Amino acid sequence: MRNKSEHPIITVIGCGMMGSSITWPAAYNGCKIRYVGSPLDGEIIAHARATGEHLTLKRPIPAGTEFYTVDEMDKALEGADLSICGVSSFGLDWYLDYVIPRLPDGVPVLSITKGMLHLGEGKMISYPEKMEEVAAACGKNIDFCAVGGPCTSYELADLDPSCVTFCGRKIELLREIRDLFEAPYYHVSLSTDVRGVECAVALKNAYALGVSLAIGMSYKREGREFEHYNSQAALFGQAVREMRILLNLCGGHPDNIELGAGDLYVTVFGGRTRKIGTLLGTGMSFKDAMEALKGVTLESIAIAGRTVEAAKTLESMGVIKADDLPLLYHIGRLLDNETGIDVPWKKFEKEVY
Amino acid sequence: MRNKSEHPIITVIGCGMMGSSITWPAAYNGCKIRYVGSPLDGEIIAHARATGEHLTLKRPIPAGTEFYTVDEMDKALEGADLSICGVSSFGLDWYLDYVIPRLPDGVPVLSITKGMLHLGEGKMISYPEKMEEVAAACGKNIDFCAVGGPCTSYELADLDPSCVTFCGRKIELLREIRDLFEAPYYHVSLSTDVRGVECAVALKNAYALGVSLAIGMSYKREGREFEHYNSQAALFGQAVREMRILLNLCGGHPDNIELGAGDLYVTVFGGRTRKIGTLLGTGMSFKDAMEALKGVTLESIAIAGRTVEAAKTLESMGVIKADDLPLLYHIGRLLDNETGIDVPWKKFEKEVY
Repeated sequence: MRNKSEHPIITVIGCGMMGSSITWPAAYNGCKIRYVGSPLDGEIIAHARATGEHLTLKRPIPAGTEFYTVDEMDKALEGADLSICGVSSFGLDWYLDYVIPRLPDGVPVLSITKGMLHLGEGKMISYPEKMEEVAAACGKNIDFCAVGGPCTSYELADLDPSCVTFCGRKIELLREIRDLFEAPYYHVSLSTDVRGVECAVALKNAYALGVSLAIGMSYKREGREFEHYNSQAALFGQAVREMRILLNLCGGHPDNIELGAGDLYVTVFGGRTRKIGTLLGTGMSFKDAMEALKGVTLESIAIAGRTVEAAKTLESMGVIKADDLPLLYHIGRLLDNETGIDVPWKKFEKEVY
Repeated sequence: MRNKSEHPIITVIGCGMMGSSITWPAAYNGCKIRYVGSPLDGEIIAHARATGEHLTLKRPIPAGTEFYTVDEMDKALEGADLSICGVSSFGLDWYLDYVIPRLPDGVPVLSITKGMLHLGEGKMISYPEKMEEVAAACGKNIDFCAVGGPCTSYELADLDPSCVTFCGRKIELLREIRDLFEAPYYHVSLSTDVRGVECAVALKNAYALGVSLAIGMSYKREGREFEHYNSQAALFGQAVREMRILLNLCGGHPDNIELGAGDLYVTVFGGRTRKIGTLLGTGMSFKDAMEALKGVTLESIAIAGRTVEAAKTLESMGVIKADDLPLLYHIGRLLDNETGIDVPWKKFEKEVY
């Protein structure tokens, strides 16, 4: 990073729950934090200015944080040592089209936006790779790093011990960025396997929906809100199996399953994805479940759909068989309203000899 | 198997919760089930005879099941097509010394007792391998197969969909045994990688204790029974990492991490191991935690201790470094009353480049 002052400046663009809470360990370390609201974050910025509280995290924001609207982004980026991409997957296009051309040259980015893009023909790339492409096309020299690993925003804000992984091409830069964030409750591993880290953590969104189907199934079967874990664990094990296959297809190192499994675990308990999986598990159609959860943004749905699409392309190319990924395909059929819950248990059985 | 009658006879020796509930899908399929109580199961047999209910599962036993005391074992084994080893790890010595010499020659065994034995010099073998050795020394020709995969007994008894793996040396025999048990709610994969399956499922006991430490830590920190999942997921991811290392050291195939992860998931939610992990996580000493849970048998403790012992031997031989398995070593120190909870988060951080 260009500046190694005692109080480096970090500008986060998109100050939803995760974009905001990740800056808290950095604030703890003495960094100067600037929030820039995306076009969707107007209320968060207004509320923060008025009360010092984060509207959706419902927790006080560390003292000294400065707040900027989207129109003030250039000012917020002035002198920044690092910027954070804090938008959700749904804000990615805005970030690529509007923000990247305005980013200062040479200032690295740490992205919390997790995901893979399907480029067609079964080829998937990670968001940081896409960001790099766009920046290069603008003639900018910006290093994009990203955050993976199990971490929900509100628990990070509550100082629950969290282990994450920062990935990027340059290990030296990753170490410098880690130094800004590492805290007694925030532990950072590093990896230059960007594709592997991003693939592992993106996939968990789809599979968390898959595991939570079992919650709804047991509610439905027993007529009470009681969870059974045999069926959740069966789906969890199958998810790990399919994630390992997909990780390999994406060109990621097999070790990344450790991140994927941890991330899957936290996401099953994490709220929104769990809600839709539970509703689908009770037998509700996807259409009705989305209606019931109206207004909730579900990145997992977008990511699951994209992963199914890529898998089907790979199947048509003969790279995989549909039966290699029976849980993902069932999730795909649920999301396409082609079927209600009907877990293909028999297809999970395998013989190893 | 020698008999392929329409109603094969299955004799289960040791009719605790798991030994009993695994016979229920077989009863569903028309098998004739005989329970033989171990010396510790006297009350279970008496209660079953008097009421038809399973004392500890607290659920009605399928009609037609026959009940035998330990003294009637020979009669119960007469004409059996399969026997089940249903004891816990704590009953293993009794099973090896007393039961195996009495088993009919040529009748295969399916074992639900999960675990690994440390033979010294860091060498670990699975229970079925040990059973084979003992049977051969008695001049008997008995094939020992075993059950792995995430499955708690009471949930199986409630017909919650479960996916398990039967392992053994002979795939044809495994298929015959599967045919007795496979049911609409009980799905059976097969594997001839006995070492790998047993290692994966044995290890999860130790690591379930590790993951549940986070539950107690968040109780303690916040003064309320509220769970945080970032820290649980961080420990879960680290557990998966260390299980992969140990699986490799045991000579098991890496794919078995799918079983290990699913099994870890169900065990974290499964009761006894979770209880002691939670108490240790609040800062209680192991001695006091065991006192608080007096009377509860904790296989996970025995298995964790044995795994730590094997790891330390491997460390002294230069095969691994202590820092390869920081979570396991911390569990070991907790169990040895050497320390209170002090998760070595920094040691979980790694750099991959």
